[in-house]
This record gives sequence, structure tokens and C-alpha cells, in this order.
Amino acid sequence: MIRIVLLGGGNIAYHLANHFQKNDLTELVQVYARNLDALKFLDPSILRTDNLNSLSKADVYILAISDDAISEVSKRMSNVKGLVLHTSGGKTIDELKGNFHKGVLYFPQSFTKGILVDFSKIPVCLEAQNETDMELLKKLASSFSKNIYEINSEQRSYLHVSAVFVNNFVNHLYAIGNEICEAHEIPFEILHPIILETAQKVQKLPPFKAQTGPAIRNDQQTLEKHKALLETHLKELYTILTNSIQTYGKKL
Amino acid sequence: MIRIVLLGGGNIAYHLANHFQKNDLTELVQVYARNLDALKFLDPSILRTDNLNSLSKADVYILAISDDAISEVSKRMSNVKGLVLHTSGGKTIDELKGNFHKGVLYFPQSFTKGILVDFSKIPVCLEAQNETDMELLKKLASSFSKNIYEINSEQRSYLHVSAVFVNNFVNHLYAIGNEICEAHEIPFEILHPIILETAQKVQKLPPFKAQTGPAIRNDQQTLEKHKALLETHLKELYTILTNSIQTYGKKL
Repeated sequence: MIRIVLLGGGNIAYHLANHFQKNDLTELVQVYARNLDALKFLDPSILRTDNLNSLSKADVYILAISDDAISEVSKRMSNVKGLVLHTSGGKTIDELKGNFHKGVLYFPQSFTKGILVDFSKIPVCLEAQNETDMELLKKLASSFSKNIYEINSEQRSYLHVSAVFVNNFVNHLYAIGNEICEAHEIPFEILHPIILETAQKVQKLPPFKAQTGPAIRNDQQTLEKHKALLETHLKELYTILTNSIQTYGKKL
Repeated sequence: MIRIVLLGGGNIAYHLANHFQKNDLTELVQVYARNLDALKFLDPSILRTDNLNSLSKADVYILAISDDAISEVSKRMSNVKGLVLHTSGGKTIDELKGNFHKGVLYFPQSFTKGILVDFSKIPVCLEAQNETDMELLKKLASSFSKNIYEINSEQRSYLHVSAVFVNNFVNHLYAIGNEICEAHEIPFEILHPIILETAQKVQKLPPFKAQTGPAIRNDQQTLEKHKALLETHLKELYTILTNSIQTYGKKL
């Protein structure tokens, strides 16, 4: 049984707390939040504190807090013995300040409070400073998922920026498609199946092999027609993304 | 029973022919292709021709040919009686040249030869010039799917450009994510679940409500860090898409 103290009251903390409470491999011994109101969702049986000097003894301390707070909060955990983890994709392992053992437990996923998370489908990316810590981390990770990856801080920063492209930027393109449809009284649901199909295709095929459309075909007539339909801002995006496909689409 | 002559030997023609052969509502009476070799996949019992003057009598003629050929081929079908359809998202109904009745049967999907298509999940967009033709089109469409939409030529052009954003451009962003991962020895499969989740989310939620990430949060530290990681071309794309989210992300 891995004894865990969880720090944080946001989305990730919420989902991790739910997981640790239900799981046989883990025991959630305490949850810290700056503001205890954030912990109303917790089972009443679970210890809670808003004081970093009153953290319970545990095997693992998990900081599920905002990126900017990791350094500050970890500095104030100087008394802690055990493995201290952060859960940020964007921060190196050295963002943890203190004499404790350090590690990272990163889920490349966006979490929303209230929307159920199936951790078994989410990969877990691990980093530790020695093999013993990594063994403990892997045991902890196995409570979530079979998809476990050792990813160092430098790789994680690139993974994080890749996730911005395939998640945040992709969602923005969905929003643009939605906007164009709404402006012309076209139900956006017409595009739901192709959105899903495009996402499913790259689960099996490298994305560059799945590239279709007027840009990769260099279908000038359609490209010009499309640009003529779009207002300035979208025309600019259309042109830049088309050029990118034409210049980099084949070798990407 | 709707009697159909299909024109074309490419991807869409292949999938349509398979559908019409199996379906109880339709009878595939003949297939035309400029080059009969393209029709090897057809059941031997089905009539075929490479001569536009020898088209059989039918209720519906479907041009599943490249956009650029629609005008030319339809011009040479002057003897035809019945409803003539094209299947292009990018062309208006007037691209059909001739004295016959005209219509459009458009599937917003990208078809690949050999990959099975489940038409029941694909929306069908219809356009006709009068109600009688539309009734026939709807009956034909009902053989494919329950998701039937009347979409006029102007709407279809906007639907088509929207599909470029949510399919072709999205796939390019997947390719960029893949490229960054490969360059740093990160298995791209780590991002498969978030890609799928992002696509699934907008099936239920308007995309602008699903927007997450450093751009919409205006997390300057992460934005700067990400830009520093990227080479010129990707840095430029990152900046433009970030600006677009920050300027248009909320109201889109």
C-alpha cells in the first residue's frame, strides 16, 4: 500500500483524490489545500490541512497545483521525507525545491472537474532521480494505467508543446469550423463524424500519410475559391496552414 | 427501386458502387469510367461502359468524378433523362451542364479505397432544383444514413472550407505534433488518447467552450518557453495560432 499526501484543490487534485480513494494499491492519508473550501468534494473520512507544516507522514507527496506555485510550495515542505512529485507537463523536475527525493507524474490529458476520467486510457509519464524512486513511481503509476512511459524533463517539455498543437490548437480549428458553419446556418454536427474520423485515423496511421485536401493536392482552383470565401483573419490562417502543408506536409 | 448509373472509377465511386450493389432500395444498372481498368473491383454481373453515348436508362446518374471533370463530362450527357447528381463539396449545382434535372449528393468525409466506409455514420447533404427531385434524392439518401441535410450550393462551399479547417488542417497539426515527438524520441502514441478526447469533446460541447491551454489562459511564461523550444517555422505557426486563440478564441 502506497501512502499518499495530495496537495491541491483543483481539477487534477480532484480526479487524483477520487482515484486514490477507490484504489487498492494506494491509501490517501491527507489532502492539503491553501483554501479548505476547495476540498468539499473529499470523503469526510480523509484528513485535510491548509498548513504545509502539518503534512502527515507518507511515501509519496503529490503536488497537483498550478505550475507557478510548485517552486514556492515545495520550498516550504522542507521537513518532508519521501518522494515528492509534481504533475506538470511544462516544468522540469528541478522546479521542486527541497532536500527530498524528487519526481514527476504527468498525465498528457486535460482534466475537467465533474467529467469522469478513465485513467486506464490515459498514458502516465514518469521521471525520477534514481532507480529506487522510479520503481516506487512505476508501482504508483500501475494503479492508473498500463501505458507507462519514462520521459525526462527535456522530453516532457517537447511533449507538452506537441500536446498544445494536437489539443489546444486543434480545438481552435474546430471552433473556427463551428463559427463558419454558424454564420451560414449550417449545423456543425454535420462535421462531427469527420472530426472523429480524422482523430481515429492517426491512431493507426502516421499523420503525414493521412493528409488529404486541396493543399496537399495543390488544387489551386479550390484554394483560391476558399480564400475568397473567408474574411481577412481566417484567410490569413488558411493561407499560412496551406503553405505549411505544401512546404512541410510531405516530409513532416 | 431506384435505378442508378454511376460515373467514375475513383475512391467515392468504389464505395458508392459497393453500397448500391448491397442495398435493397437501389439497383446499380451500369458504371461508366473513362478507363475500364478502374472498374475491376465491380461485380462481373454489372454493366460497364467507357462511352458516354451508351449510358443506360436510369432514374439517377451520379458523377463521382474529380471536380474539374464535372462540367466536361456532364456536357456530354445531353441524351440523358433523369436526375443527374454530382458529389463534390467544392462545386455549385450549376457545375452540371445539360438539360437534365440537376442535384448534389455530398458526403462530408474523406474516402480511401480499401478502407471500409460505414455510410450509416456519415451525414448526407442534398441539393435539388425542385421538390419532386428532392423527394427522390431523400429516398436515395435514406439508403445511406438517417443524417440527411438540405444544403444549398452557397452553404456547401462554406461547409467545404470548414471541413478543410477541422480535417485537413487538424491533420497537419497532428503531423507537427508527431514530428516534434519523433525528433525527441517520444512515442507519439502518448498523444493518441488526448487527440481522441479532444475530438470527442466537441461532439457534445461547442468547441469554444472546450478551449484549454496556455494561449486562452494567457500563461506568458509557458508561451515564451514553448516558443523558445521551436524552430523558426513552427515558432511562427505557434505564435499565429496563439494570437488567434487570444483574439478570437472567446467570441468564436
